Amino acid sequence: MRYRRIPDETVRRLPLYLRGLAYFAQRGESRVSSSSLAEFVGVNGCKIRKDISHFGVFGTPGVGYDVANLTRQVRKILKLTSARKAALVGVGNLGSALLAYPGFATYGFDIVAAFDSDRRKIGRTVNKVRIEDSAALGTLRRRRINLAIIAVPAGAAQDIAEGLVRAGVKGILNFSPCYLNVPRNVKVVAIDIATELARLPYYMPAG
Amino acid sequence: MRYRRIPDETVRRLPLYLRGLAYFAQRGESRVSSSSLAEFVGVNGCKIRKDISHFGVFGTPGVGYDVANLTRQVRKILKLTSARKAALVGVGNLGSALLAYPGFATYGFDIVAAFDSDRRKIGRTVNKVRIEDSAALGTLRRRRINLAIIAVPAGAAQDIAEGLVRAGVKGILNFSPCYLNVPRNVKVVAIDIATELARLPYYMPAG
Repeated sequence: MRYRRIPDETVRRLPLYLRGLAYFAQRGESRVSSSSLAEFVGVNGCKIRKDISHFGVFGTPGVGYDVANLTRQVRKILKLTSARKAALVGVGNLGSALLAYPGFATYGFDIVAAFDSDRRKIGRTVNKVRIEDSAALGTLRRRRINLAIIAVPAGAAQDIAEGLVRAGVKGILNFSPCYLNVPRNVKVVAIDIATELARLPYYMPAG
Repeated sequence: MRYRRIPDETVRRLPLYLRGLAYFAQRGESRVSSSSLAEFVGVNGCKIRKDISHFGVFGTPGVGYDVANLTRQVRKILKLTSARKAALVGVGNLGSALLAYPGFATYGFDIVAAFDSDRRKIGRTVNKVRIEDSAALGTLRRRRINLAIIAVPAGAAQDIAEGLVRAGVKGILNFSPCYLNVPRNVKVVAIDIATELARLPYYMPAG
C-alpha cells in the first residue's frame, strides 16, 4: 500500500518520529505539536510537517497531530504493521548483544534464527535461539525469512551477504564496518557506530 | 574554528560523506563527482553540493571534488583532526563488542577507560582497558575525558548520564534504548538500532 514514492531522506526520519510519538504517548499526551516533536527528534518543524504531508496526514493548527493516529499512519507507511522474522549471522559479542536487545520487538522484529561458523558455538542456545552452522543459510528461503542482520567481522561480511541474497533475503541490517555489494532489489541499512560518534565532537569544546 | 553555524541535518550527513570519500580514496580515485558520492551515501547530489558549500568548498564542474582536500575539510569542520579520549560505561555484551570495535580509531577515538557496576567485572581487563567501578565516574574530569559511551541497561542510563555530566562530560553516545535528559550544553547522539532496522521493511516486498 505505497501511495507514491516517499524520498529516502523522509523514510530515514520516520522511525525517529515514531520514537518521539512513543515518548509523548508514554507521557499520556494525546496530541503533539510539530514543534514539540521537532525538539524531541532534532529535526526542524517545517521539515516534519512536510514529511508527514507526504502521506496525507495534516495537523490541526494550534492543536497539532493526534498521537495515536499519526503513530498508526507512520507504522503503516513503514510496513511495520505485521511481525517479521529475522535471522542473525555472527554470534560474537555484538551478535549476542543483539539477540538480547529488547528494541527489536518494538517494531515487530523477531530474531528466530542465528548462524555462526564457529563449531564451538553451533548447537548452543542464546536467548532461546539455537545457533546453526553458517553453511545452512540456504534454509532461510523455505523458512520464509527475508530479513537478516549481519554481525560478522568485516572480512567475512561480503560472502555472508551473497549467501543471504542467494537464500532470498531482501533486507539486510549491516553492522560490519564495510560496504556490501548487493543487487539493487536488496536493501542494505548500514549501522556504522563510528559514523554516529563522528558527529559528536562538532558540538563539543575543543578537545 | 567554526566559521558559521552549520545545520544539524548537514552535520548528520558529513560523516556519511567521509565514509564515501574513504571508499573512493581506497579505490585510488583522486576526484569524485557529487553524483558518485550521492549514489554511495544515498543522498541526492544537489543536497551534497549544498552541504559542502556551507564551508566554502566547491567542486569543479565536470571534474568534481578533490577527494583528499574534501576529506581534510570535512574532518576539520567536524573537529576530527585530533585524537579524543573516550570512556565506556557498561561492559556487557554490547560494551565488550564496542571495546573491540575497530571503527572508532578511524575517527580518532580512543576508548581509554571503562566502567561497570558489577563487582565480578571490576578489575578485569578487556581489550587492554581495565574495568573500573562505576562509582569512580567522577575521576573523568581530572583525566580530561569529556566524551562517553553509555551501554548500560535502559533503567540505569539516566543516572549514569547525570554522573557523567557532573564529571564534566560534554558528549555522550547513547546505546541504551531510552531518552536521556541532560543540560543543553551536553550533546547526546543516540544509536537506536531498532530505529535503523525500522526503515528496512519499507523497501521490502510485503512480509
